[in-house]
Amino acid sequence: MALRGGLATEKGCVGVEGVRLVEEALGGGCRVEAVLFSESGERHRERLAPLIGRREMAFPVLKTTDRLFEGIADTEHPQGVAALVEPRKVEVADLLATPEGTCSPLLAVLAGVQDPGNVGTILRTAAAFGATGAATSATAQGGTASPFSPKALRASAGAALHLPVLAGMSLTILLTQLKVEGIHTLASCVQDETKGGSASLSPWEVDWCQPLALLVGNEGAGLPEDIVRGADARVHIPMARGVESLNASAAAAVLFYEGYRQREKQKQ
Amino acid sequence: MALRGGLATEKGCVGVEGVRLVEEALGGGCRVEAVLFSESGERHRERLAPLIGRREMAFPVLKTTDRLFEGIADTEHPQGVAALVEPRKVEVADLLATPEGTCSPLLAVLAGVQDPGNVGTILRTAAAFGATGAATSATAQGGTASPFSPKALRASAGAALHLPVLAGMSLTILLTQLKVEGIHTLASCVQDETKGGSASLSPWEVDWCQPLALLVGNEGAGLPEDIVRGADARVHIPMARGVESLNASAAAAVLFYEGYRQREKQKQ
Repeated sequence: MALRGGLATEKGCVGVEGVRLVEEALGGGCRVEAVLFSESGERHRERLAPLIGRREMAFPVLKTTDRLFEGIADTEHPQGVAALVEPRKVEVADLLATPEGTCSPLLAVLAGVQDPGNVGTILRTAAAFGATGAATSATAQGGTASPFSPKALRASAGAALHLPVLAGMSLTILLTQLKVEGIHTLASCVQDETKGGSASLSPWEVDWCQPLALLVGNEGAGLPEDIVRGADARVHIPMARGVESLNASAAAAVLFYEGYRQREKQKQ
Repeated sequence: MALRGGLATEKGCVGVEGVRLVEEALGGGCRVEAVLFSESGERHRERLAPLIGRREMAFPVLKTTDRLFEGIADTEHPQGVAALVEPRKVEVADLLATPEGTCSPLLAVLAGVQDPGNVGTILRTAAAFGATGAATSATAQGGTASPFSPKALRASAGAALHLPVLAGMSLTILLTQLKVEGIHTLASCVQDETKGGSASLSPWEVDWCQPLALLVGNEGAGLPEDIVRGADARVHIPMARGVESLNASAAAAVLFYEGYRQREKQKQ
């Protein structure tokens, strides 16, 4: 079980480390291959016992020494608990579904977000504000860092495990499918970008209650030009001092907050 | 001119480094004591020339070698441009003013924000979303990191220099003065905290068009209990998954965004 580097195994499994993440993995929808405790990690077993006990699919619960655990851990001060899990198998159809309690799909599409920490934070924020799914772009088109690397998983606080995430998707295919299925695509822009005569919207001018996919681009360069042009609408966060932009995760927080606000208002 | 460490000189001057920050300092309201170029920093002189030329108060423009500059610089790859500036002298009265084009004062009060990067980012976000001033708490009460340290200045992208910032203020005195002057205090809470029978508000339930001071607390511990209790109202950011909270700067971005949204709406 190689936690370091976060490369998926041949079967597509990823290692998750730390009590909270293992808890999320055990409690969420992903298949668990094995759980590993180090000697000092045993103190967390009680907290996890109900989750380990109630899983229908049996999996081995392994023990190792602290020293061996430190050798495979990705963090500097490991908690001594890890699991090998298979992230949920997500199809485009899963992203089109409207989960119970929500009015319509709200997706985060990450196209070229390079920093694993940002990928995780954006997923966490999206999930916290009621997004129903996410997708990340494949390498060929300015790829997005893997949502399942240790750093991204930690930053996502487990959101990458319970939110349906379609990783490494071809943007062109995804956006076409979204369009066919009637999901509006909204390109997040750093500045007011008028394209083909239509200005970009302020977040509060967007109808967040319609089926919507928010496209988030690279930290520096933003979204590829053709993606911005092909989107149904563009959104930018207006500011009193127009010079500066928010960092990627703060901008995502503001946009998904606005979506949450509108969706909550509609519920009333 | 000691840029490293960011300690103010006896006169209260601070060093700012990098083309953009020096530009902000020269263009903003703060007094400039001196500007320093290294040999390779000379290439930025043209960009800064209009600002250096038009300043009424003359100040020395110094030259040094790259090696000497690197010795005093706080950054690893210095741009070779720095300035010694005296931050704006800010009184409480300055924070009570309603600048032209705004409906009423909107203040950021940082009480115990420990990370200089967060202090800078919060100031930058506040300024971007139309805050009219800011204050930071003195050390005695879980102090806030200096907004004028190199790291905070960089993260603020210069906002710490152009926004009126009252640094190292006694919270008790400040909050009393705000109350006397009719500025509502709004405590930012991580969770819904019901105090004295009144629940905390969602951001959209707050009237951001009234004279308002948003109190932002420590990254981990939040605001001191007595400050939360003493505030006129409490606000928290509700989330679909209640477990997680946003990081300090993303939370500030969401709150100040909501204020901006309402204030823009009122203008229409």
